This record gives sequence, C-alpha cells and structure tokens, in this order.
Amino acid sequence: VLRTRVVTAALGLPILLGALYAGGATYLLLLGVVSAVASFEALMLLSVPRSPVPLLLGVLGAGIWLYVVSGNRWDLLPVFFGGFLGLLMVRQVLFHPAVRAGETASILLSCVYVGFTLGHFAALRELPGGFRLTMTVFLLTWTFDCAAYFVGRALGRRRLAPRLSPGKTWEGALAGAAACLAVAFIPWRLWPLSSGMMVVAAIVVIFASQLGDLFESSLKRFAGVKDSGVVLPGHGGILDRFDGLMFAVPAVYYLVTLASPGMVGG
Amino acid sequence: VLRTRVVTAALGLPILLGALYAGGATYLLLLGVVSAVASFEALMLLSVPRSPVPLLLGVLGAGIWLYVVSGNRWDLLPVFFGGFLGLLMVRQVLFHPAVRAGETASILLSCVYVGFTLGHFAALRELPGGFRLTMTVFLLTWTFDCAAYFVGRALGRRRLAPRLSPGKTWEGALAGAAACLAVAFIPWRLWPLSSGMMVVAAIVVIFASQLGDLFESSLKRFAGVKDSGVVLPGHGGILDRFDGLMFAVPAVYYLVTLASPGMVGG
Repeated sequence: VLRTRVVTAALGLPILLGALYAGGATYLLLLGVVSAVASFEALMLLSVPRSPVPLLLGVLGAGIWLYVVSGNRWDLLPVFFGGFLGLLMVRQVLFHPAVRAGETASILLSCVYVGFTLGHFAALRELPGGFRLTMTVFLLTWTFDCAAYFVGRALGRRRLAPRLSPGKTWEGALAGAAACLAVAFIPWRLWPLSSGMMVVAAIVVIFASQLGDLFESSLKRFAGVKDSGVVLPGHGGILDRFDGLMFAVPAVYYLVTLASPGMVGG
Repeated sequence: VLRTRVVTAALGLPILLGALYAGGATYLLLLGVVSAVASFEALMLLSVPRSPVPLLLGVLGAGIWLYVVSGNRWDLLPVFFGGFLGLLMVRQVLFHPAVRAGETASILLSCVYVGFTLGHFAALRELPGGFRLTMTVFLLTWTFDCAAYFVGRALGRRRLAPRLSPGKTWEGALAGAAACLAVAFIPWRLWPLSSGMMVVAAIVVIFASQLGDLFESSLKRFAGVKDSGVVLPGHGGILDRFDGLMFAVPAVYYLVTLASPGMVGG
C-alpha cells in the first residue's frame, strides 16, 4: 500500500503543484474537478441516494460556493445560493415524500463542506505571494501528516480518538505537531511570512488539519466505510487526501487576511 | 379556531406592523425574536435532539445569517459562518458518535432556512420605500392566503398536494392567485412599484409563498406533526404563520433590487 501510495503521489503531485504554480483559470479548473469528485464522495458519506439528480445538485452547489469564494464574490452568494436553495426546496416539495428533508440538509452540508473549503484554495492563491503561501500550507500539513503517520505507527500507544479513527495516536499527533513547528522554525528566506507568523501558521495548521482529518473520519464512521473513494490508488478517495488541507487552507487564509486586512478582497 | 385565530392576529398584527413602521433596530429586534422561535420550531421539525446545545447553536447560526443579510454585510459571512461551521464540526468530532452528521446538516439547514429568509425582511425594509414595499408583500401574501383558505374550504374539490397538505385545493390556490392579482391591478397611488412591476410582484408572491407553505408542510409531514408550534394560538407556530412570507419577502427583495440595481447595498 505504501508503494502504491508513493506512485500515486509521484503522479498526482506534479499536476497539483503545476496547476497551483500556473494559478488563475488552470488552478480553478483543477479545483473544480477536485470539488466535483469530493462532492460525490461527501454525498455518499452523507447517505444521499446514489442517483443523478441529488449528485448533480451537490456538485452544482459546491461549484457555486467554489466560484463565490474563489473570486471573493460574496455579493453574488445570496442570488446564486438563494436560487440553489430554492431549487432544492422545490424538489423536496414536488417529490414528497421520496425526497426527504434530511437529503436536502445533507446536500447543503456537502456543498458547503466541499465548496466553501476548496474555494479558499483559489482565494489564497490569488493573494499577493499566494503561490508561496499555499506551498507553505501544503508543506506544513504534509509534514504534520507524515510525521504523525510514521511516528504513530512506530511508537504510538495511546489512542487519540479510538471510536473515530483507531489508527491515530497521541504520540503520532504530538510528533506531527513537533515536526510541523520545527519546519516553521527553520529560518528560510523563501517563507512568505515573518518568523512569528510562521509559528502561528504552524499552530493553526496543526489544529485545522487535525480537525479536518477527524471530521472526515466521523463522516466515514457514520457511513461505515474505510475510505471515502477509490480515485487515488493507495490513498483512497479525494477526501482522504484533502481532508486536512481543506480546513488548513481556509484557516491560514483568514489568519493572513485578518492579520493584514489590506490583503482581503484582492 | 377561527375566532382564536382572529384574536391572535388582532394582538400580533399591531406589534408586527408597529415594529415594521419603526424599522431599524426595533424591527431587527422583533425579527431576532421571530428567528429564535422559528429556529426552535425548525430544529424540532428536522428531528434535532431537544437539548440545549443543538438548539442554541441553531438559534446562533440563524442569528448570524439574520445579521449578515439584514445589513448586507456579505463580506462578514465567511468569517462568521466559517467559524460557526467550524464549531459545529468540532462538536461533531468531540462527541462522536452521539452527535451525528445528520444533526450537523439539519442545524445548517435550519439556520439557513430561518436566518437567510428573515434577514431579507430587514433588508427589504431598509430599501428606499422599504416600509411600503414590505406592506405590499404582506398584503399580497395575506390576500393569497385568505382567498385560498376560504374559497378552498367552500368550493375546493381537486387536491393540490394530497400527501403533503391535504387541506389545500387547486380551486383555493387559483382563487388565491386571482385575488392576489386583482389586488395588484387596483390602481392605487400608494403602491411603491409601477403597475407593471406590481403584477410581476404579485406573480412572484403567488409562487414563492405557495412554495414556502408547501416546504414547511413537507417538514411537518416528515416530523409527523400538524402544527410547527404553539406560540400563536389558533395559528400554530411562528413557522405556520410566516412560512409563505419567508419565501415571498426574499423573492420580492431580489425582484426589486435586481430590476433596479442601484437599490442594492443600501
């Protein structure tokens, strides 16, 4: 599994980082594909019926959030989102009782979970220094993940969340946090943030990505599955690979933009 | 029941219309109270556990939308709403598996359903001529409701939505639509809109309030209850009385602001 995992990463990483470097429409296109696949997975995890209409609605709703957040077009949200919600409600009324209120609620949660978070990937990229900012979040998150995984497997004793994600240990999480902070402490002139902000960013990444990871685990637990999907051999689904980043990227986006308000709306 | 209904209306209407006339903080305060009660009712209909934390979260989330929409502060939505969603997700992770994903989704739907719609009551009031605009929507919606109710009871034969709301008939709905259009056709110098726009507004109100009514009915059907609550004697709950308006007011708000873009953001 580790071998397949590395091969998939070796193929997928250049695509992700290439699109990230290109930015603009290229990156947004990749995020659109990721959002569509992630929406399918999230909708399945949330027990939405496996049929075309709810799946397309979930993908559409996530796309609306992606578009609104990525372009900072919050002014468009009421019209688009109001219209989209109206559509969900018309559907629930017309197809009563086959379309349940819980299905409407799950589609709503899925599109916010996927579209709101992935939209911030584009928004972060569009900030001044956005490429380096995003690379920094990726690097910190992956450092946390890798250290937590390997140290947890080698030395892990005390379980972090036995019912939620039995493989995770406190030893792994603490090693991940330590590695993440150690990377942030490296004095490197390519960091896009001051050394103080790097440490704050590392702390934000640690908590956000751990939450993202556990939140996705809880969705999988409720659905009774081990992986969110199969599109990334060795990794599982898109959500399995992006769960931590999906929370870390928005968290760092708000850290950076709220710390220097002039950067918002860029 | 009709008698109790009239008495409640005679007591409640002056409060609603007085606060509407006053506008500003007074009206927003009333909407805040309505939003809190409506959230309780919506959360119950969506089978959210009847305990303090989920109820308070639902009221808080609706309050965030109410604040954001009423003041046209869409720029604040990502921070507030992101933070609120983060809180819901932390809760789902910490209390796994007692807090289910479906509960998180239902709280999200409830706060959007209540807060997004009621927020537009304040936004419509704040437009130039907002008092008369709102009175117009109220008048059109109530005309539709009353005509549909009385004509439906007297002459109704063909059921509109037998599984959803057995009391509603096509005869009632058509009479309601005819009455609503007839009112809109009255040449009256106090109307805030041109005669052409009045007819369009009446059509928008007919469809939006009928959808709002049926959407609330579907929530009640799933919950297996007849009324959404008991706060308005003779009427049932807040949602039973506001269901149509909750969709008609945002619909007319967007009709008016999109038809004359200069009015947005006021």
